[in-house]
Amino acid sequence: MPELQAKLLEMRTPQATKTAVLVIGGAEDKVHGREILRTFFARAGANDAHIAIIPSASREPSIIGGRYIRIFEDMGAKKVELLDIREREQCEYRDYQQSLEACTGVFLTGGDQLRLCGVLSDTPAMDIIRQRVRSGELTLAGTSAGAAVMGHHMIAGGGSGESPNRSLVDMATGLGFIPEVIVDQHFNNRNRMGRLMSAIASHPDRLGIGIDEDTCALFERDGWLQVLGKGSVTIIDPTEVTHTNEPHVGATEPLNLHNLRLHILSHGDRFHLYQRTVLPAVYRISN
Amino acid sequence: MPELQAKLLEMRTPQATKTAVLVIGGAEDKVHGREILRTFFARAGANDAHIAIIPSASREPSIIGGRYIRIFEDMGAKKVELLDIREREQCEYRDYQQSLEACTGVFLTGGDQLRLCGVLSDTPAMDIIRQRVRSGELTLAGTSAGAAVMGHHMIAGGGSGESPNRSLVDMATGLGFIPEVIVDQHFNNRNRMGRLMSAIASHPDRLGIGIDEDTCALFERDGWLQVLGKGSVTIIDPTEVTHTNEPHVGATEPLNLHNLRLHILSHGDRFHLYQRTVLPAVYRISN
Repeated sequence: MPELQAKLLEMRTPQATKTAVLVIGGAEDKVHGREILRTFFARAGANDAHIAIIPSASREPSIIGGRYIRIFEDMGAKKVELLDIREREQCEYRDYQQSLEACTGVFLTGGDQLRLCGVLSDTPAMDIIRQRVRSGELTLAGTSAGAAVMGHHMIAGGGSGESPNRSLVDMATGLGFIPEVIVDQHFNNRNRMGRLMSAIASHPDRLGIGIDEDTCALFERDGWLQVLGKGSVTIIDPTEVTHTNEPHVGATEPLNLHNLRLHILSHGDRFHLYQRTVLPAVYRISN
Repeated sequence: MPELQAKLLEMRTPQATKTAVLVIGGAEDKVHGREILRTFFARAGANDAHIAIIPSASREPSIIGGRYIRIFEDMGAKKVELLDIREREQCEYRDYQQSLEACTGVFLTGGDQLRLCGVLSDTPAMDIIRQRVRSGELTLAGTSAGAAVMGHHMIAGGGSGESPNRSLVDMATGLGFIPEVIVDQHFNNRNRMGRLMSAIASHPDRLGIGIDEDTCALFERDGWLQVLGKGSVTIIDPTEVTHTNEPHVGATEPLNLHNLRLHILSHGDRFHLYQRTVLPAVYRISN
């Protein structure tokens, strides 16, 4: 059965021309194999790709943006543009909107996710991206802060090194491309299990997705996500939770959560966002 | 049903005179409320307690041992002894064996778990402790390194900040008081989710128990463990795992583990080692 499922999945449109949303855990390889960035490039149309870089999360938007421009130009993209949006007003600019209407890929860089949302949320530019991602005309990628904004609920900041507790995580509203999930990045690298647990305890209708550095959860439009890269993607599924003290304890008291489902996924593994099923990489027929 | 279960549990012999095994995540409060150390003291017999401190894990056994001696003397223990065992030969000493045969509580301090096992494993002293813990004559506690040794399999060392992978954890043989579990301590504090996951991937017939600092998993002889202290106890149950790549990947490649069961427990929560059931603190009638 899983083989059949995988086979059917593969037999659809060729991967390279299928749009997707790539949620990257930060610190992706920009120098050597560039597996994750190459996958974004391929999904955005490869040599036909027209890529828009949005570096609004960063304090050094032109430096970080320039770096990604060179990478995708080196790969052979037809056109790469920097949309150096620093103020909300710029989201009204007709030339930026025209770029977003024409491009085949949008890349959100790292930095501060609050800054990124502050600039983009509820703007005409954002509406164009959302509508075109939804209708499968655009491949979207976000790394680090650009990954954090993917859910409806967003981890804006927080701490580490503590038992899960409500004060360990600051929540905000994200850009909502994949509303079902709460993303955390640099996950095992920065000891963020506690803060993602804390986020899930207060939002048990969502799925926690912890993404390690140089690792990517690639979301297909059919509900499957697939893992790319060097590390692991941790899925925290609270669907079967029987008990949590979250509504009853103080902000710094330890949270409990009984009967979570946990998946540690690595390269090639798949997980279905709605069916909540896991498909190991070994069942795939081709890459 | 859970209420009834809890009620029956409580109605047995009074807590204070029931022996137990206390597995402490390190850095327990030694100054203020001393909740965990007080519980050990009570379970070891309170004012009738005769406590033996074994500081063999530590490089400064007399300093660390002296500290615990003062604590339990302050609490009013009848007798507190330091068994300053530094060499395996000392485990043959008749006076040490007589102490272990007479005492009602044994406390294993922190330090290096390999040193502790190196000194105690397969010695007459160890046989006495194990047999008396098993028959319910002795309350045992171990903190930090003293906690790590509780399982049959022991985490001897390892790293953090990486996706789970086999090279992230060094395994050794522990003292085997609770053979079913693999214990990790300073758990959320030192980012050890990845290493405990890695340990469980290679030992899927065990249960992973991650204990935070100033937190304790108190194991009753009937199979229930109960959480005490400030942080959380993380239980990783691989019983239902459907897939892992552990047998097939290199030592530094990321591990996957699909369909783990995960419980985050806090103060008062209980978990049954064999039934694998969780009982929230709210169902308890008294403390």
